Amino acid sequence: MELQVMIQTAGGFYFIVPFQVIKCKAAIAWEPNKPLVIEEVEVDPPQEKEVRIKVVASGLCQSDLYFLLKDMNKHLFPLILGHEAAGIVESVGKEVTEFQPGDKVIPLFISQCRECRFCKNPKTNLCEKGSVGEHDNIANSRITCKGKKVRQFMGTSTFSEYTVVNQIAVAKIDPAAPLEKVCLIGCGISTGFGAAVNVAKVEPGSTCAVFGLGAIGLAAVMGCKAAGAKRIIAVDINPDKAEKAKVLGATDFVNSKDHDKPISQVLTEMTTGGVDYSLECVGNVEVMRSALECCAPGWGVSVIVGYTNLHDITARPIQLMTGRTWKGTLFGGFKGKDGVPKMVKNYLDKKVKLDEFITHNMALDQVNDAIELLKQGKCIRTVLSVSPQ
Amino acid sequence: MELQVMIQTAGGFYFIVPFQVIKCKAAIAWEPNKPLVIEEVEVDPPQEKEVRIKVVASGLCQSDLYFLLKDMNKHLFPLILGHEAAGIVESVGKEVTEFQPGDKVIPLFISQCRECRFCKNPKTNLCEKGSVGEHDNIANSRITCKGKKVRQFMGTSTFSEYTVVNQIAVAKIDPAAPLEKVCLIGCGISTGFGAAVNVAKVEPGSTCAVFGLGAIGLAAVMGCKAAGAKRIIAVDINPDKAEKAKVLGATDFVNSKDHDKPISQVLTEMTTGGVDYSLECVGNVEVMRSALECCAPGWGVSVIVGYTNLHDITARPIQLMTGRTWKGTLFGGFKGKDGVPKMVKNYLDKKVKLDEFITHNMALDQVNDAIELLKQGKCIRTVLSVSPQ
Repeated sequence: MELQVMIQTAGGFYFIVPFQVIKCKAAIAWEPNKPLVIEEVEVDPPQEKEVRIKVVASGLCQSDLYFLLKDMNKHLFPLILGHEAAGIVESVGKEVTEFQPGDKVIPLFISQCRECRFCKNPKTNLCEKGSVGEHDNIANSRITCKGKKVRQFMGTSTFSEYTVVNQIAVAKIDPAAPLEKVCLIGCGISTGFGAAVNVAKVEPGSTCAVFGLGAIGLAAVMGCKAAGAKRIIAVDINPDKAEKAKVLGATDFVNSKDHDKPISQVLTEMTTGGVDYSLECVGNVEVMRSALECCAPGWGVSVIVGYTNLHDITARPIQLMTGRTWKGTLFGGFKGKDGVPKMVKNYLDKKVKLDEFITHNMALDQVNDAIELLKQGKCIRTVLSVSPQ
Repeated sequence: MELQVMIQTAGGFYFIVPFQVIKCKAAIAWEPNKPLVIEEVEVDPPQEKEVRIKVVASGLCQSDLYFLLKDMNKHLFPLILGHEAAGIVESVGKEVTEFQPGDKVIPLFISQCRECRFCKNPKTNLCEKGSVGEHDNIANSRITCKGKKVRQFMGTSTFSEYTVVNQIAVAKIDPAAPLEKVCLIGCGISTGFGAAVNVAKVEPGSTCAVFGLGAIGLAAVMGCKAAGAKRIIAVDINPDKAEKAKVLGATDFVNSKDHDKPISQVLTEMTTGGVDYSLECVGNVEVMRSALECCAPGWGVSVIVGYTNLHDITARPIQLMTGRTWKGTLFGGFKGKDGVPKMVKNYLDKKVKLDEFITHNMALDQVNDAIELLKQGKCIRTVLSVSPQ
């Protein structure tokens, strides 16, 4: 591949982009439940309608662990994890007009093509062109290691210094945005914040319960507060999470281990009949049931935010028949190209916090240490420096 | 009890209401899963804030059977079933100003006190004063048989020539209403119609699926049509229901027994990706799962309408996380005192059908024949003449 093309930058200058394979570092997951291995990979040039991105910073999210640690996903390996990142456009393929080299961007694990029936419908942020990116098909991967294609997890694979993403799965963001912070908008913060604001549609003066105080849960707390909730009850089994939850807006903290009664009963009693909104940010079907059951009959809305696909959710039908609503969300209901730049602006305008979520900064080659921290619940978010800026 | 009171009628005349026990006929359910027995009962005079009603006509609803046939309810016996009725006020207790003898009324199994936090909230039709009537406590029953109190099922007990109901559980209706028709508004028709219109909030041009074509399902079909649905797919395992479904607005009929594939897959394929709204009107948790799964990702709304409390509903979390909403309803979301008179007017204005639902008319003492017909799926609704008018 020795193609070269002329590109005009935002500044009006012309220069040559070498349209060639990039050799760089990436963290490869060769098999489930094993440490990632830093390897040299080859990243193809972007094809038509594709964008090659220098990944500057990437968060590590529970969903990365979910796919790494569960044996049932072994058909997906080898793969490169990472889907919560920010970077800089390195080069663009043919027919890409929306992006130019140098643009600051956030890759999207749910695309927004703006043309399909989902994209045209304001009720959803799904996209018919593939919610997790076409590169999930390993044949379409643009990344090779030791002569073998490596699957691009969620179409993104941001634990690689460079990655190639379809243009429908990239959001351009404010050039002033600090990439090592706003990377978190690529998944966790938008997912939790949006779950409260876009999906539960929390109303001013309401009472909310948030189950699970990882980054998504804490962002949900922040979303409830932004929406004007009067009371926000943060629930976790780890008392260390209480303080951070209060920083982000929680009015109460409940450690479900402190109670003999079911947590749904504890919350129902605390709130004289149940909460108006509950958000499950754990990814555990038993917690999802509790989150539904702690809602007020008549109008309570429970939103499933934490991801799991191992078991069924269960509930008595009467829970719904007496007026509770059960919903769920991926990426907090944000259409990526529209929502991500707004979330970045909210951060720059100090309407959304990000710094408070970042408990650790590490280099890409420390990714296994970051995984251990997250497994043990000892971090909120670790941000990995992937490529030097 | 030999109290007498003076009452002013709507016409301005005064007359004496004998405030005494009424001896009349009622169908008693002495024990589960046994034929009802027509017995003489004693119906107390209405106490403060209560209304004694001469029940003119009563439908037989699946919920009556549900409570009659399931052994787990045996602690409820003896009881008098019937909750879908219309009648005439015979006398009123102290502090009743809303009703007068001679008023045509429909008893409500969900009360509307207009004062509690549920009644004041437009999002729900529940009432804190008791969704099923305070007479469900057998000590509060106003009906006695052979010297024993008999429980008033759902606070109503309309398989009795006379019954006593709290004034918050009675709706006054148009004097022109034919009671032997509008009795169906007391449960099934409002439940199904309202589930589509008030709870699913079916939008014009949408595609709907209705599972189960008893009276509630057929009323849901009618509700979908009234809301402007473009396509209404009626689903049942009994092909005899197809014709009536089409009369009420169904555009398609699917017999799930005709397909080897899961019904949710059949519907998803028929609709290129799923329906916008589905309504489960069977009361079967497997069907509830199918009804959820046949909904379009992104925006599909599934409403549980058929009553059961024997098993859990189950689903994969991803069904909700990809944008489906799971809801449920009792009495179609109608606040009874507000909604029932409007539904009666809709019938008088020919905006809502009732006659098409009535397949059989019988006398109260044929109630066991009516039960057999309903068990065998050979009727839509049987209307029982309870007291002669």
